[in-house]
Amino acid sequence: MGRITVRRPVERLAVGGARSRRADTLAVEEPLEIRVGGAPLTITMRTPGDDFDLVAGFLAAEGIVGSADDIAAMRFCADTHEQNTLDVTLAPDVRPPDAALVRAFTTTSACGVCGKSSIEALRADRRYDVAADPLELDAAVLAGFPDTLRAAQRVFDRTGGLHAAGLFGASGELLALREDVGRHNAVDKVVGWALRAGRLPLTGTVLMVSGRASFELTQKAMTAGVPVLAAVSAPSSLAVELAEDAGMTLVGFLRGTTMNVYTGGARIRP
Amino acid sequence: MGRITVRRPVERLAVGGARSRRADTLAVEEPLEIRVGGAPLTITMRTPGDDFDLVAGFLAAEGIVGSADDIAAMRFCADTHEQNTLDVTLAPDVRPPDAALVRAFTTTSACGVCGKSSIEALRADRRYDVAADPLELDAAVLAGFPDTLRAAQRVFDRTGGLHAAGLFGASGELLALREDVGRHNAVDKVVGWALRAGRLPLTGTVLMVSGRASFELTQKAMTAGVPVLAAVSAPSSLAVELAEDAGMTLVGFLRGTTMNVYTGGARIRP
Repeated sequence: MGRITVRRPVERLAVGGARSRRADTLAVEEPLEIRVGGAPLTITMRTPGDDFDLVAGFLAAEGIVGSADDIAAMRFCADTHEQNTLDVTLAPDVRPPDAALVRAFTTTSACGVCGKSSIEALRADRRYDVAADPLELDAAVLAGFPDTLRAAQRVFDRTGGLHAAGLFGASGELLALREDVGRHNAVDKVVGWALRAGRLPLTGTVLMVSGRASFELTQKAMTAGVPVLAAVSAPSSLAVELAEDAGMTLVGFLRGTTMNVYTGGARIRP
Repeated sequence: MGRITVRRPVERLAVGGARSRRADTLAVEEPLEIRVGGAPLTITMRTPGDDFDLVAGFLAAEGIVGSADDIAAMRFCADTHEQNTLDVTLAPDVRPPDAALVRAFTTTSACGVCGKSSIEALRADRRYDVAADPLELDAAVLAGFPDTLRAAQRVFDRTGGLHAAGLFGASGELLALREDVGRHNAVDKVVGWALRAGRLPLTGTVLMVSGRASFELTQKAMTAGVPVLAAVSAPSSLAVELAEDAGMTLVGFLRGTTMNVYTGGARIRP
């Protein structure tokens, strides 16, 4: 890869002190144009790397694909000088996306003029019943996830600029870790990895995110069949409402040995 | 307002300890549909409040409006039960947006298949020359911004779930503060406030954001004529490249008495 980070000079300033010049490591942000059957679908700003996973996860979150078989091929367009345009060939029986619709909802992945209608719209589209997932896990196992995630993050410590999403099994084993300047992209990359590996739905797993839990992240986890979403920071009101409606467990402020359990507390053993 | 936060029960868990049930304050996240002349333009997830500012700032960032005069009226649609649909009437001489175009670029506010072309595309559209802004300010003034922002944030301390964007004058005075679950929305709200107050371009000001500095946030600041963007956390590679190209000052890791100056260091006096 080599394009996940770049080095560039920075002036380090201390109030009342001297300026010092040094090299700093930055997380790379580049646009990726996603095409389906040659037709432009959307452009997203992302950190290069795991782009096939990113695109597969994005298409899954949009409800366009549901398994690896739905994607016949993915390739970077040869006529562009950078690997920033990726074309997807869907399987013959998969209905191509309505570009206008996907574009309209790229920032929300939901429709409706109020939170309630957004949740109801998703209810009709659910592929998996996460409420029925029998997963139970110890609070102590959950509490170990942030450290595991941080230890496994290759880039964060060097740039401070990347979000991480990690997928864990019930015994606490890390199944997949993806990083990106965009937290939604990090989750798409994890889900896309799972889709391409034939692992959907993600029954019995925990998705851990380095930041906050928004409606959109909760929706992406739900669409992939993840029963437990855990975040280092706060959830939004609509994230909690969606998790409750879907029967997901939503954990926030997972730090040290404590956590807030907003919904689905029966899955967590103290 | 009353809808910026909601209270709901949460289980507080400590590993090996007891569960305790208490009330938690969450940041509200709700969809807002933006219409122009009655036609749906986009839907964004946001924290209610300052919605007129949000929409004005969004339209400014998209290059659709440039001053308060470009907006003839804004009103919430009466036929929806919540204040989640806002219709904008543009002035007669303002060209209505191409919905397909805005939708396609909502997540990026830029086009192009590589970072360089994204920056070049913006170069053609620049309303203001921020490179010519003669602003200079003391590092000590800058170092005080995070504390001022935090002190002025009404909601963050209660929910931990909101991003803040603050606009400061050269002497360190806070001109405007806006909060949102989405950091882009917080910046749109500040810029929209300025536009509606007839304060664009934002010559001689500093925009401070609570999180990281992405390409999109840098682009929004540049489009509003802000010469200095300061962030608590790391910038991305493309944010630094855009700031350099535009002649903006970009400061990251502004914490305590230290900061990293990535571009435009001549504006900061140690």
